[in-house]
Amino acid sequence: MILLDGAATAKSIKLEIASEVEALKKAGKKIPHLAAVLVGEDGASMTYVGSKVKSCEEVGFASTLITRPASTTESELLEIVRQLNNDPDIDGYILQLPLPKHIDEHKVLLAIDPEKDVDGFHPVNVGRMMLNLPCYLPATPAGIIELLRRYQVPTEGKHVVVIGRSHIVGLPVSILLQRNANPGNCTVTIAHSRTNDLKSLCASADIIIAALGKPEFVTGDMVKDGAVVVDVGITRVPDPSKKSGFRIAGDVNFAQVAEKCSYITPVPGGVGPMTIVSLLMNTLSAVKKHR
Amino acid sequence: MILLDGAATAKSIKLEIASEVEALKKAGKKIPHLAAVLVGEDGASMTYVGSKVKSCEEVGFASTLITRPASTTESELLEIVRQLNNDPDIDGYILQLPLPKHIDEHKVLLAIDPEKDVDGFHPVNVGRMMLNLPCYLPATPAGIIELLRRYQVPTEGKHVVVIGRSHIVGLPVSILLQRNANPGNCTVTIAHSRTNDLKSLCASADIIIAALGKPEFVTGDMVKDGAVVVDVGITRVPDPSKKSGFRIAGDVNFAQVAEKCSYITPVPGGVGPMTIVSLLMNTLSAVKKHR
Repeated sequence: MILLDGAATAKSIKLEIASEVEALKKAGKKIPHLAAVLVGEDGASMTYVGSKVKSCEEVGFASTLITRPASTTESELLEIVRQLNNDPDIDGYILQLPLPKHIDEHKVLLAIDPEKDVDGFHPVNVGRMMLNLPCYLPATPAGIIELLRRYQVPTEGKHVVVIGRSHIVGLPVSILLQRNANPGNCTVTIAHSRTNDLKSLCASADIIIAALGKPEFVTGDMVKDGAVVVDVGITRVPDPSKKSGFRIAGDVNFAQVAEKCSYITPVPGGVGPMTIVSLLMNTLSAVKKHR
Repeated sequence: MILLDGAATAKSIKLEIASEVEALKKAGKKIPHLAAVLVGEDGASMTYVGSKVKSCEEVGFASTLITRPASTTESELLEIVRQLNNDPDIDGYILQLPLPKHIDEHKVLLAIDPEKDVDGFHPVNVGRMMLNLPCYLPATPAGIIELLRRYQVPTEGKHVVVIGRSHIVGLPVSILLQRNANPGNCTVTIAHSRTNDLKSLCASADIIIAALGKPEFVTGDMVKDGAVVVDVGITRVPDPSKKSGFRIAGDVNFAQVAEKCSYITPVPGGVGPMTIVSLLMNTLSAVKKHR
């Protein structure tokens, strides 16, 4: 079994990005500047945004963190979006999801300038991804593809089962994996809550992408010998033995599944760090595109 | 076996559209106006465009057919697109594909105003479709969904195998069928030229969507008893016994497959007429949206 070590891979990609930033600096060019907007005080969101800002610092990007209380109105948030769109110093920015319930998420996402949408959530970027045109790829799917690429995991002709049909992970990763590309050229099945006999389906898969958000859902009996398993899950599970009071659980029962796999991602340290690195790569490409 | 009679279904939908147009007229409102642009003299394209224009007349739409020789330059075509974008009388328009090789298809499609892109090919519409936002759905996938809806073919939890990953049929129909909707909620596998053991995969499917463009590719041994088969193929095959010198063949060997099916579309008279009706429905919705 080979561990798809997202933390180590992300670290080496960050070094590559840092040296690109260094080169930009030396050439007297603008360094990338990523902004992040966080509305409310959700603990997990605060952690994610914190990691993103910290990663920016590590690679030499400029970063701006904009925090607002959960009581922020939709029009106040739209005004922030407008300012970020018009600020020539900001190359890309992200809006940490979920937003408070009283704000129409779609409305705000649609207001983001697609050229600065380094999360790849705007319909223009989603459509361009589907049509295989240049775009910002959504961060988590792109991170998964990059991890498979770096480990040279064979994908052509393989049967992939993606569990979960979310707009930010399941659906886009299924599109990227069926493409005529490497990694890619997979026969992709997208499964979800209405799928019959998910157990047999998974047991027939060469590659499983678990992205449903249910801790330890994928058990040993659902995985065939030699399968590749990518665990996108990242749920906080109460754990009194931890100082924080919780532990991070993936969608895969690692102890049962790992021994059957040819490759598997750990949680944490698998897909998570790769997601952040994708965001940095999108921001770097934004600078290259704009300047 | 029940025939999914696209021709008859299209006919009754056309009557519904015609009565809506009649109501618009009576209310003194603008009637829908669809334009079609045809570059070159490809026989099949001329037939398709002709059917579309004729269908406009049947339902009471205004229509404009713009034909240009194969020698038309990209900038000449872009100028036509610009004029159509700016013409307030045109509600929607289509560019018949394929375009001559010397014209960059993507460049021209990107120039179409997404609000008038009733073929649903522009990245904005593709992205909005994927995110389940209001949009023009691509005509063939939307026609397939409408046919399944009208015949109340059960889809929830069914395993669909889509053969072919084109941007205009295979990929979008796979997205529409996995959605949390009815028709929808299918477990969808997208298969293509790199898929291993396509025969077994198809034989396990509850629903097969054949959209690869290879005449009579799906044979009896690839279909399980009781399956639903939708044939998107429409290839001209030389046939000296016909006056035209050719016959239209689907991607399914109908004689072998039909007897095993619960539902099947014929070719011609299946998906084809539904595609045209989708275009009319998109144009009607364009009028409603703009006025």
